[in-house]
Amino acid sequence: MNAKPGDKVKIITEKEEFEGILMPRPELLEKGFTVIKLDNGYNIGIEDKKIKKIEILKEYKPKKDKKVKLPFNKNLPTISILSTGGTISSRIDYKTGGVQSDIMKAAGVQSDYTAEDFVEMMPELTKIANLKTKKIMSVMTEDFTNKEWSLIAKEIAKELDKSEGIVVTMGTDTLHIAASALSFFLKDLNKPVIITAAQRSIDRGSSDAFMNLICAITAAAKSDIAEFTTCLHGTTNDDYCLLNRGTKVRKMHTSRRDAFRPINDLPLAKVYPDGKIEIINKNYKKKGAGKVKIDDKFEEKTALIQVYPGMDPKVIDFYINECYKGIVLAATALGHVPTNGPKSVIPNIKKAIDKKISIVIASQTLYGRVHPLVYTNLRKLSIELGCIFVEDMLPETAYVKLGWVLAKTKDPEKVKELMLTNIAGEISERSLDKEFLY
Amino acid sequence: MNAKPGDKVKIITEKEEFEGILMPRPELLEKGFTVIKLDNGYNIGIEDKKIKKIEILKEYKPKKDKKVKLPFNKNLPTISILSTGGTISSRIDYKTGGVQSDIMKAAGVQSDYTAEDFVEMMPELTKIANLKTKKIMSVMTEDFTNKEWSLIAKEIAKELDKSEGIVVTMGTDTLHIAASALSFFLKDLNKPVIITAAQRSIDRGSSDAFMNLICAITAAAKSDIAEFTTCLHGTTNDDYCLLNRGTKVRKMHTSRRDAFRPINDLPLAKVYPDGKIEIINKNYKKKGAGKVKIDDKFEEKTALIQVYPGMDPKVIDFYINECYKGIVLAATALGHVPTNGPKSVIPNIKKAIDKKISIVIASQTLYGRVHPLVYTNLRKLSIELGCIFVEDMLPETAYVKLGWVLAKTKDPEKVKELMLTNIAGEISERSLDKEFLY
Repeated sequence: MNAKPGDKVKIITEKEEFEGILMPRPELLEKGFTVIKLDNGYNIGIEDKKIKKIEILKEYKPKKDKKVKLPFNKNLPTISILSTGGTISSRIDYKTGGVQSDIMKAAGVQSDYTAEDFVEMMPELTKIANLKTKKIMSVMTEDFTNKEWSLIAKEIAKELDKSEGIVVTMGTDTLHIAASALSFFLKDLNKPVIITAAQRSIDRGSSDAFMNLICAITAAAKSDIAEFTTCLHGTTNDDYCLLNRGTKVRKMHTSRRDAFRPINDLPLAKVYPDGKIEIINKNYKKKGAGKVKIDDKFEEKTALIQVYPGMDPKVIDFYINECYKGIVLAATALGHVPTNGPKSVIPNIKKAIDKKISIVIASQTLYGRVHPLVYTNLRKLSIELGCIFVEDMLPETAYVKLGWVLAKTKDPEKVKELMLTNIAGEISERSLDKEFLY
Repeated sequence: MNAKPGDKVKIITEKEEFEGILMPRPELLEKGFTVIKLDNGYNIGIEDKKIKKIEILKEYKPKKDKKVKLPFNKNLPTISILSTGGTISSRIDYKTGGVQSDIMKAAGVQSDYTAEDFVEMMPELTKIANLKTKKIMSVMTEDFTNKEWSLIAKEIAKELDKSEGIVVTMGTDTLHIAASALSFFLKDLNKPVIITAAQRSIDRGSSDAFMNLICAITAAAKSDIAEFTTCLHGTTNDDYCLLNRGTKVRKMHTSRRDAFRPINDLPLAKVYPDGKIEIINKNYKKKGAGKVKIDDKFEEKTALIQVYPGMDPKVIDFYINECYKGIVLAATALGHVPTNGPKSVIPNIKKAIDKKISIVIASQTLYGRVHPLVYTNLRKLSIELGCIFVEDMLPETAYVKLGWVLAKTKDPEKVKELMLTNIAGEISERSLDKEFLY
C-alpha cells in the first residue's frame, strides 16, 4: 500500500530514519523529493533516490467536524472576526500539521477556522464577546497588494455597522504595511479595528495565536480606541500583547512572537489575557458616532527604494521610464543619499523631480527622524531639489501614504503638504519611553 | 561693512530676529537664502527677501594653531588613527561651528583633526597610547563606494605593521556597511582594527565623540580582539561603548548616540571610558602573529532590493538588462517575496537565475534568520529556483559579501558555498541575551 498525504510514516534511507507526517507536495515530488513534517513542526525534504523504504505507521483519517453551538449573550458586545489567510487562520488538522492553506486543500482538509473553532479551542472567548466570523480571502501577506488592502477595507466598513469592533486575522509578513495602508483607507473610524496574527501555527503548543486572539478580541470588545491597530505579543513570554498604532509598527524579527515593535511612537496599550487593558499612550482617537468612509484609491506607480553604497543611480531612471509618479527613498540616517562622485543619484533625482515625480525621503535606520537641514547634502535634497523629508515616518508607511496621496493629487506642492500633514498618527511629536526603544 | 562667513551676526526680519554664526553657502545664497548656525547647533536658512538687516555682533578671526607636542611613552602601545571624513574628524572652529568639511574649506578653516588636536582636547589619551594620525580621505559615508572601502583597507594594512592597533574615524551614515566590507577585505587580521565616529559634532557639549574616541583607543591599545569592530556608545548615557563585530552591527537610529546596535550577535565587549574592558562574547579571534592580506576585489554589478507589497517585478529585469551578476533581496520575514498573482516576482527571479545571476535572500526584519523550507513559497525560492538563503546575515552585509564573493567566482554553486561559509562572523549560531535584542 502506498503512503498518502496525512499518513504518519517512517522513511528509511541508507543512513538515516525519519518519522513524520507525509506532506502533499506534487511540485517537489516531481523534482524527486518526498517531504514529511517532523514532530518538532519542521518540514524536511528527502531525496527519493536515497529512500529505501516508506513504512506507514498510522493512516490518516480526516477528523469529523463536531461544531459547538455558539452562545449568544445579550450583555456582551458582538465582535466580527474577518479572516484573510496566513498562519493564524489556516485550519490545521493535528494529524497533517501543515500551515499552508494550499497544502491543506491538497490534503482535502478545510483550510480556515470559523468562530466555532475558536470557541471550541478557547471557551473563555464566550465570556468576552459574541463572535461571528467571515472569511474574506485566503492570501498570504507576501502576496498582498493594494487590491487586498482595499478589499479588507470594504469588508471592515460593511461589518462595522453590525458589531462593536472588528478583529482581522492575517499573515505576518507584511501585516504592518497592511495596517498602515488600512489606517489611511478607513476614514472617520469610530470603533476599534485590530489586526492580529500568529508567528507559529495554532496546532503547536508554543503557538502565540491563542493569546493574540484573546487579547485582540478583548481590546475590540472593551477598549474605546477607535483607531486601526495591531495586537500581538509584547514580549517573548505570554504576559501581554501590545496594541500598536497601524502606522507606527514594524515586523522586526523573522520568527519571535514579539516581532511587531512600536517604532517612533508609544504603543497605545498593553492588553493582558485576563482582560485587563493598560493604556500607555493617552493620545488616541476615542470611540464615537459617525460612519466610517472608504478612501482606498492608490496610485500603483509608487515605488520604494533602499539606498546603499554603490547603488546604481539608473534604477531611478527605470522608474522614470516606467512613468512612476512617486518614489520613497529609504535614505541613510538623517536622509542622505549618494551625493558626490560617480555614483551620485542627485542628477537622477533632479530628472525625476523635473518630471513632477514626487521624491520622498525616509530613513532606513527606521528609528528616529530625518532632517532636511542639518548637513549640506541634506539641504541639497530638500531646499534645492524639493525632496519631501517625512519626519519620523517609517519607509513602508511613507510608501503606502505616498501611493494614497498620489491617488488624490499629483501636484508636487499639494503632495508635499499632504505628506507632511499627520493623518493617521504617522508623524509623531513625542519622545519615547526607554522601554519601547529598540 | 558686509558680514563674512564665521561672523557672529544678528539677522532681523520683519517678524523675527535670529542670532548665530553666518555660514558660507554660495549654492544656497544664489537661491536667495542666508544660513546661520544657531547657538543650539542647528542651521537655519532665512529668505534674503525677508531680511531687513544683518548686524555683525562679533567678527570672525581664525584661531591660531597652538599645537601641543605629543609625548612618547615607550611603555605604551602605539595606535594609529586614520581619518576618513565625517562629523567626528571634521575640525570645528568653535566660532563657525559647522560640521562639514566643505563648509570649513569654504570658510578657510582647516578641516581635519590631528592627533595633536585630540590630545589637546583629551589629555588623558596620552596615558592610554602613543598616538599618530593620518588623514586618508575626506568623504562623507553616504558617498562611499567599494573604492573607499578598498582605499581604507590598504591604508590599514600599511599602518598595521607600525602600530599595535588602529582606530578609523568615519561618518556614521553607512559606517556599518563599511565595517562589514572591511571585515571581508582584510584577511588574517592579527591586531584590533576599530571604527569609531560621532553622531554629534565635537564642538557641542553633548558630543559623543570624546567617549567614543577614548573607548576605541582603549580597545585598540588594550584588547586582544583581532577582528574588525565598531566602537560607539552602548546607551544614551556616557557609561560605556559597545565593541560590535563589523558584520553584525547596524545604524538603527537617525541621531541617538547609541544608534549602532548589535544585530543577531552579542557585542564582543563593553568598553568603559575609565579603561575597563568587559568581554561579553568570548567567541572572537585573538591577537597573533602573521601579516594581514588585502582581499578587496568587489563586483560592482551587485544590487540590493527591498521587497514590498506592490513592488514592480520589472525592477529585477532592469538589473538583468544592466548585466548585474548578483542581487540581494531584502525579503519579508523568513524570506518571502511576492509569489502569486500579477505582481509575482518569481518569473523575473527565474529569468535572472537562468542567466546565472545569483539571487540571495536576507530578511528586511533585520533581526532573526531566514528559512528556506518552512513554507511552500520559501521552498519555491530555495529548492525550485536556487535562491541562496543567507541565515541571519543582515541584508547590507549580504550585499557586501555577495559583491566580494562574485569578484572571486561567478559559478552559482561556488557562490552559494561561499555565501553560506562563515568568513567574518557574518553567520551566527548563537542565541542572544535579552539585553541585546531590539
